Formats: sequence, C-alpha cells, structure tokens
Amino acid sequence: MAEYQAPLRDMQFLLNEVFEADKLWASMPATEEVTPDLVDAILEEGCKITGNLIAPLNRSGDEEGAQWSDGSVTTPKGFKEAYTTYAEGGWGGLGGDPEYGGQGMPKMLTVLFEEMMYAANSSFALYPALSAGACLAINAHASEELKQQYLPKMYGGVWCGSMCLTEPHSGTDLGIIRTKAEDNGDGSYAITGTKIFITGGEHDLTENIIHLVLAKLPDAPAGPRGISLFLVPKINVNDDGSLADGNAVSCGSIEHKMGIKASATCVMNFDGAKGYLVGEVNKGLAAMFTMMNYERLTIGIQGLGCSDRSYQSAVEYARERIQGRAATGAKTPEKVADPIIVHPDVRRMLLTMKSTTEAGRAFSTYVGMQLDIVKHHPDEEQRKKAEQLVAVFTPVAKAFFTDLGFENTVHGQQIFGGHGYIREWGQEQLVRDVRIAQIYEGTNGVQALDLMGRKTVASGGVYFQVFAEEVRQFVAANQTDAMQEFLQPLSESMQQLEDLTGWVIEEAVKNPNEVGAASVEYLHVFGYVSYMYMWARMAKAALGEEASDDFYKSKIFTARFYTKRIMPRIQGMILSVKAGADPLMEMGDELF
Amino acid sequence: MAEYQAPLRDMQFLLNEVFEADKLWASMPATEEVTPDLVDAILEEGCKITGNLIAPLNRSGDEEGAQWSDGSVTTPKGFKEAYTTYAEGGWGGLGGDPEYGGQGMPKMLTVLFEEMMYAANSSFALYPALSAGACLAINAHASEELKQQYLPKMYGGVWCGSMCLTEPHSGTDLGIIRTKAEDNGDGSYAITGTKIFITGGEHDLTENIIHLVLAKLPDAPAGPRGISLFLVPKINVNDDGSLADGNAVSCGSIEHKMGIKASATCVMNFDGAKGYLVGEVNKGLAAMFTMMNYERLTIGIQGLGCSDRSYQSAVEYARERIQGRAATGAKTPEKVADPIIVHPDVRRMLLTMKSTTEAGRAFSTYVGMQLDIVKHHPDEEQRKKAEQLVAVFTPVAKAFFTDLGFENTVHGQQIFGGHGYIREWGQEQLVRDVRIAQIYEGTNGVQALDLMGRKTVASGGVYFQVFAEEVRQFVAANQTDAMQEFLQPLSESMQQLEDLTGWVIEEAVKNPNEVGAASVEYLHVFGYVSYMYMWARMAKAALGEEASDDFYKSKIFTARFYTKRIMPRIQGMILSVKAGADPLMEMGDELF
Repeated sequence: MAEYQAPLRDMQFLLNEVFEADKLWASMPATEEVTPDLVDAILEEGCKITGNLIAPLNRSGDEEGAQWSDGSVTTPKGFKEAYTTYAEGGWGGLGGDPEYGGQGMPKMLTVLFEEMMYAANSSFALYPALSAGACLAINAHASEELKQQYLPKMYGGVWCGSMCLTEPHSGTDLGIIRTKAEDNGDGSYAITGTKIFITGGEHDLTENIIHLVLAKLPDAPAGPRGISLFLVPKINVNDDGSLADGNAVSCGSIEHKMGIKASATCVMNFDGAKGYLVGEVNKGLAAMFTMMNYERLTIGIQGLGCSDRSYQSAVEYARERIQGRAATGAKTPEKVADPIIVHPDVRRMLLTMKSTTEAGRAFSTYVGMQLDIVKHHPDEEQRKKAEQLVAVFTPVAKAFFTDLGFENTVHGQQIFGGHGYIREWGQEQLVRDVRIAQIYEGTNGVQALDLMGRKTVASGGVYFQVFAEEVRQFVAANQTDAMQEFLQPLSESMQQLEDLTGWVIEEAVKNPNEVGAASVEYLHVFGYVSYMYMWARMAKAALGEEASDDFYKSKIFTARFYTKRIMPRIQGMILSVKAGADPLMEMGDELF
Repeated sequence: MAEYQAPLRDMQFLLNEVFEADKLWASMPATEEVTPDLVDAILEEGCKITGNLIAPLNRSGDEEGAQWSDGSVTTPKGFKEAYTTYAEGGWGGLGGDPEYGGQGMPKMLTVLFEEMMYAANSSFALYPALSAGACLAINAHASEELKQQYLPKMYGGVWCGSMCLTEPHSGTDLGIIRTKAEDNGDGSYAITGTKIFITGGEHDLTENIIHLVLAKLPDAPAGPRGISLFLVPKINVNDDGSLADGNAVSCGSIEHKMGIKASATCVMNFDGAKGYLVGEVNKGLAAMFTMMNYERLTIGIQGLGCSDRSYQSAVEYARERIQGRAATGAKTPEKVADPIIVHPDVRRMLLTMKSTTEAGRAFSTYVGMQLDIVKHHPDEEQRKKAEQLVAVFTPVAKAFFTDLGFENTVHGQQIFGGHGYIREWGQEQLVRDVRIAQIYEGTNGVQALDLMGRKTVASGGVYFQVFAEEVRQFVAANQTDAMQEFLQPLSESMQQLEDLTGWVIEEAVKNPNEVGAASVEYLHVFGYVSYMYMWARMAKAALGEEASDDFYKSKIFTARFYTKRIMPRIQGMILSVKAGADPLMEMGDELF
C-alpha cells in the first residue's frame, strides 16, 4: 500500500480559497489570533505525525489486534509510543477549551486533522476521538470542579475518555438501559451495570480512563427521560489531581470484530463504581448528545479518511499495473500492456472516489465552519442559523460520508483485482475498518430517521429551508457563464430536494411510516445535493486558474464528472421514496 | 447465526410452477428420465447435507482457515470428513456426463444445489466447484483417453480439479502469460511456470488434484492466440488409473485473504511438470472458456447463496431483537420495545434482500434451463436461441448476482447493528466471503465489458434482441388485469433497456471508449430488467393462489416491492450512461 500523505493542498484550498476561513476567524474574538500561517504550520505537522508515525502502524495493528488478558488490554506494538508522541505534541487538546489547557483551534481545522488521523489509522484514531468527545461533554455540562480536575489531563492526553451507552439489550433504544446509579450521599454515586461495545473502554495508552456512563437513578422515570450521565474514572482521583485507588470498573472482555482490530471494543462492568453526576439528574441523554453529535461528525470523517487512503493507493496501482490495452489503441506500445488507468471503468471508479471524497472533505470543512459560528460568532442571528444547519448536517455527514466511504473503499479494492482481496496490499483492511462507521454512533438508518423525522418533518422543514435559502443565494450571486454547468444542476436538484422534502412532510401526516420509509434514500438525495453545492463552490474558486495550475484543472474535471455521472443517482432514489411506505409495510411479518 | 435451511419450497416453485421443468425434461431424450419426484428427492437430500453437515463448518472454517506447511495444505477440522461424505453421496458427479460416471442431472437442478453449497459454506463449496468446471472442460475438449482416465475419478470426487490461469503479472490480460510448455516427444509436455490465486491448487481432501493449466509452446504466436491448455496431475497416473510418482508440481504458499479463509488460494509452481494437451494447440483459451463460463455462473450463484443465508439470519434477528417502537404505536405493548421488523427501514433492507435473492434464484434457474436446452434440445433453432441467451446472461449472472449479493450481505449485517460487526454472529463473514465473488473469475468490470462489448456492440445487439423478443412475447401472452402492475413496468423498462442498447451501439462507433464507460451501469440496468421479468413470471405463477397459501401471498407482496421500490434504480443509471465517456476520459492521467 502507498504510504499515506495527507492532502495538504486540498485542505488549504478549502480553508483559504473556498471558505475564506481567515475572514471568519478574524471576525470572531475567540479566533482572531488564528492566522493562516499558524493553521498551515499545524496542518503540516499533522501531515508529518500521521504520515510518518501513525500510518505505518495501521497494517501491523490490524494483524496483531488489541489483546485482552485478565482484565487488561494491550494495544499493538508501537501504539503506546506513538500515542505518547501524539499526546506530547499537544494534539489531544487541539480543539480544547483554552481555559482548561486546550488550544482552542477552530473546528474547521480540527476536522481536517481528524481526517488525517482516520486515514492514517482508524483504530489508533478512535482512542483520542472518544477522549475529545468526552471532553466536550464534560466542558459543556460538568461542574467547574470536575472540569478543573479532569479536563487539563484529558486535553494533555495523559488520560483518555470513553463513552458508555450501549447495553446488551439496549443499543439504538437507550430508554431501556438498566445500569443503576445510587446516591452515596457524599456528592458521588455508586454505578452498577454492564456496558458493551465500549470503544477504548480499557487500554494501556494512558494511566487513567475517564468513562462517561449513562445510568438510571432508583426513582427515575421510565424511558429516555429517566437517564442521567456520570463521570466514572477507572482510577479514582484525589483532590490534588493525583491518582488514588482503583475504582470498581473492570473490562470483562473485548470483541472479535470484522475490522478496527487494534481498537479495543470492551465489555465494561461497573460494580458500584464511584461516579459523579454530569449535568442535571435525568437529563443525561441531552448531555450525552453533546458528545454524540461530536462523535457523529468525527465518525463521518472516518469515512472520508478511509476513502482518501484507499484512493491514494488505487491511483498509484492504476498507474503502475499494466493489463490490456486502451480501447482507442495502445498508449504504451513499448510495454506488453497499458497501465489500467486507461480503461474507462477504472477511471469511473477512481473519479467516483475522488469526486465524492473531495466533496466530502469540503462538506466536513463547511460543517466545521458552522460549528465555529455556533460557538464563537458574536451575532446571534448567525449563530442561530448555523445551529439549524448543524442540526441537519450532522446526520447527513455521519451517514453519507460513511456510506460513500464504504462504497469508495470497495471501489479501491476492486481496482486492485485479486490483489485487493489479499491482506498484504491493505485495501481490504480499509473496507473492513470503514464498515463499522456505518453502524456505530447510531446506525446510518438511525441518522436518516433523525434527519427525516426530528430535523425535517418535526420542524415542518424550517431547518431545511435555511439550507435551501443559502444555496439559492449562492446561485443568484454567481451567475457567470462558466458557472452555469454547475449552477443549473445545483438549482434543479435543490428544487427536487425541496419538492421531495415537502412531499414527505405532507405524507407523514397521513401515515407516520412514511418517515422511516423515505429516510435513507432521502438522506442520500440530501447528501448528493449538498455535494453538488460543494462542487459548485469549489468550481467557483478554481475557475479562471485552471490554465496555469493542474490542481485547479483537476478540480474542474472532477466537478464535471460529479455533475454528469454521479448526480443522476438521485433520480432513482426520488422515485423510490415517492413509491411510499405501502410496499414496505403491507406484507405481514410472518411472510418474510 | 441461524442454521442454514435451503429454500426448498421456493426451488420447487421455480422448477414446477414458474418454469415447468418437467415438460422441458420430458421433451428432450437426454433428460426424459428426470422426473419431478426424482428431482425433489435430490433437492431434499441436498438440503440435508448442506444444512446438517456442511453449514456447521462455516464459522469454524473461517476461524481456523486453510493452513500451509512445507508445500502441504491442511483444510480446517471437519472438512475432509464432510468432503468424503459429499463425494460418497455422488454429489461430485451430479451434473456429470453419464458416459464417464456422471449422473447427467440437468443444469436447472444443479444450479439450485450449488446455491445450497455456497450458502452453507462458500469456502467448502469452492473445492467441488472448481472440480466440476475442470470436468466440463476435459469432457468437452480432451481426448477420449484422457476422459476415460480422469473423468470417473473426478466425478466420483476421489480426485479434485483446479484452474491455473493467473500469473503475478497477468490476470485479466491472459495474452501475456509466461508459463511454458515443451513437447516431450512422448505425447506429453513439460510445463514450467508460476501460477497464482489458484483456488484449491493444493489441499488434503483428495488423493490427487488435476490441474488445467494455460501455457505457451515455444513457437506460439504472441497474445491470446498462442495459448494452449494442459492437464497436469499433481500425482502422475498409470495407464490402469492407479497413482504413480509425484509430478513436478508444488504449492509455494497460500494467500492470507479478507474471506473464504478455508479455501486454499495457492501459488503453484510447475517445474517441468508432465502435462497433456487438452484440445488443439494454441486454442487453449477457447477450451478454458468452457470451464470459465461454468465458473462464472457458479460464482454468480455464490452471490445468491451468501445473500440467502444472510437474509435467513437477518429475518430471524429482526423478529427477535426488540428496540424502539413502531411509528404507528406499540405493536407488542407487553414488552419494553417492539421487534425491529416493525421499522420501515429494517423492512426496506429485508425486502431488498428477499426480492433480489428470489429474483436471482429464478434467473439462475432460467439460465440453467437455457444451458439444458443448448446441451440437449433436439431442435437446432431452439438450441441456437438458447445459446445466444446464455452468451448475454452469463456475464449478467456472474456480476449482478454478486454485486447484489454483496449489497445484500451488507444489509443483513446492518440489520444486526453492532452485533453484525462482531464475528460470532456470522453476518460479517458473509460480507467478507461474498466480496471475492465480485473479483475472481473475471472482475465484474470485465463481465460488464464482455456483455457490452463482445456480446452486444460486436453483435450489433442481435443477442439482446433474442431476449427482448422473448419478454415481449411473454407480455403479449399474459394480458390479464391482475398482471398489469407487473407487465407495464416490465414493458417500459425493457423499452428503456432497448433504447439504451441502441444508444451505446451507435455511440461506440464514434468513440470506442463508450463501451467501457457504459458497461457497468448498463449491466446493472440489464440485471434489474431481467429481475423484473423474473418477478412477472413468478407473479403469474402465484396470482390466484395467494388467498389460500402464504407462500404465494408473500410472492405477490415481494414482486410489488421490487417493482415499486427497486426498479426506479435504473433511472439514475440510464442517465449516467447517457452522460457518455467524456467526463471519464477528458481528465489527464496526471490529474488524478
């Protein structure tokens, strides 16, 4: 497999040329010290640590896997050293709150670094990803005391975090969890229960692990409104921040999985473990959602990262592997065959990967921008608008990035032919590793239901209109001849998406099943239209420069490919949604 | 994972009710002794051996894998015993030529048994699958002497076969192979070279392995017209059929793969090994195609088998796993949640699996019927027509069955949520195992090129018209009210496919790249229209019976789902094909 090289030029293009991040940062007090030079330097260092240190551990990590023995988990060879370098480099607190030792870098930057991490090594990336999410929830909901005690060590990477939601009988449906919390009367609670599928629940990378655990108090109401959130350290922490005795938390086993084998997926047992309430009693699910929304975006980015790494390898292979001849006559007559990049279908797969990965990267940067506005913008109207966009974009990013990430790694594997199925080339690992991203942090079906139900039908389409309006304004503001080939399909597909949104909202009144019957295909239509918007924005930034610089030329060709050969996909999906729920629901359960 | 239970009722429905196989068999001298009772008995026994003996070795075979040591390959525990039972039961010669000890059963039956085998255990199924293909090539092209010497032992399962085509630098492009054959002057040849990716090239199931090897004679023309086919036994065979000394054939190693881990994928070294010419000098590729066409269909059937097994498990899980509530109110208020089969999106995934697996099974039976007509029908006109259908159907079956098989196992895995990613449930293994079927025996891209180029553009659409005409006749002959909901979409989509076929044939004259640019999506459109035809035929057989029997009722609902929610997929594909080759070809190689 080709070594991984972060796509720095594309990242800089997005920040500086497409989204003009410097202007935004300069306009917000919290980010006014973030300069393009500083950001460039960080991206360059990120490129080095991911390419030189973390990516080389990807294959060996997969072969070796995380190992469980007697309650302890050993990460594969090299992980601990790499993690220490990562932590000492300050990467753990890159986006963290400066008040507690974080570096306060904007989300627009951290999403790009996250992509590098997943591309380099998805299993490795998950340990800090869970930690960063836990920090967010603690920072947003915990008491000042807990924040001071835990955040600096977590930002510093000295301690890691985990997220303990799922139980054997309770995954998507968290309302039925059984883990209990009892008040110890001293400001702490005793947590008892079993959690499964806990990523990084136990490992040897850090001296302590801080679990955020959903549990129910004895008198809590049934269902999702009776859930509270607790901070439960693996090792208790003294008031001065030093480590005390071990807490009653243990790792019962780890799962044997299809992929991300170097990431420990743990069964965690809490036997009256000492925990501390985060946020209000019975409002734990809302507090946990701070973390989950973060995790959803980052897991989406796992899809992008794996997709890009698969693309990099596939392009290299397609240029080197010779097999058959071009349909229009030999391209390299001096060799016994032409490189397979001459074949239209190989190019179709490569361009599908390239066009959707680059659009995805643009979209993740754009979502990062909205998150920065929500957090830092002085204007309330702007913040509110951005918040509504984030509400609809989060499930789209999580599900669409990972569905296409999976499709793309499968293309990347296919380009290698038989060699793609053999472990040594690394392409099959990417397929296995990215597959989980469609499942965890809420399956992509659950994301689609969130988008279609809570975010769209329940709001009467208000959030959607914020997005549609922004796109309309972009189209109106950029009416040049050269832009027409991108603006027309953007306008038309946005109109189709708007019609479809209205159709589902109307039908859902008559039949609540229409929401779930439309959701997955609706999310995909939404995703493709969003990517068309990203391509129009990238084309705008590239047009006029394409004669002098291959980077821009490549952008225009890729935008064109996306417009002409990928966008048609939505036509079938729209028709399928409009066929309605009946074909799904009429058949009796016993007839399956 | 649910135990595998072959779908006997559906198989009988296809043979007896949809395709009325008994009438066909009675009309052909070679099959006139094949009665529905006999076929039922065979299917029932097939159900037992696959469900009780072979399926239980699937998970353990994956965990243990085939093991290589010092040139020998050991199959996982239980494989040898199960194979012996299989061979002794006569299954190895089920479709074999009765003149050499085969049972002469029609292909319509053997395709169904093959599906059972792959569903039960894809790794296991591959050993006899390669053997059956080798027998076909030997029977069609080898000398009478070779046939008498090898076929009875191979049909009896005492010896296995393998297919040795690929070399490290030569996969799709067989014209550039380097393996050499030199005439020994005694009727034998000395074969020297290295072959890779040889399924079942070495193993411990049988006392001998008969390799069919592509090689070049010293004076052979360059390219595909200089390839000859040789039979090379692992152990030389005396004139009386007893085993002599070992041949100069050795297994250098086996591959470590994403899946089908219990199938040994071998590097085979031939060091002047003694071989015998099969067919004519320099016409080896044509002779090998007898085997390859067989393998292509059977590998397609691997897609069906894995898909069905994944479906069986997913339905069981969706009925048992409780999580969340139905959108229209609790279905099982006595429990804390409803079974997930109440959710529209879970049903969408299940029905996608069901509708495409059942249509695929129908299509494989229908292709089997055409193969039986080609082989046995007394009427030359019928044989010729069937031959043309088989020419177009073979690449469609191989690629479409496996592309949908992959999609379906991914759905099956998704329905299990996080549990689908854990090895113990078996769903992830099906995804890994079926993935190879899109790659080997000619990647699905190569199949699409064969369909679009050789079979369609090169013939000016003649073969396609045979199919279109058959469908038109079916539509004309079945104009009842109840059939309209299936006949109309069938007619319309067939018309669209016909238009698209004509469009590509025309464009290809102007630009040879249009063939490869259209091919994969064209094959999918072809596949979906073929499945629509299958659903119309199944609906015809089921209509009128649905009130009295749930089996027929399920067929009608599934046909409706397919028509309304799956068929729209082709609309996007058609538009994408018609966007043409330029968006793929215009970008310079250096811009990827």
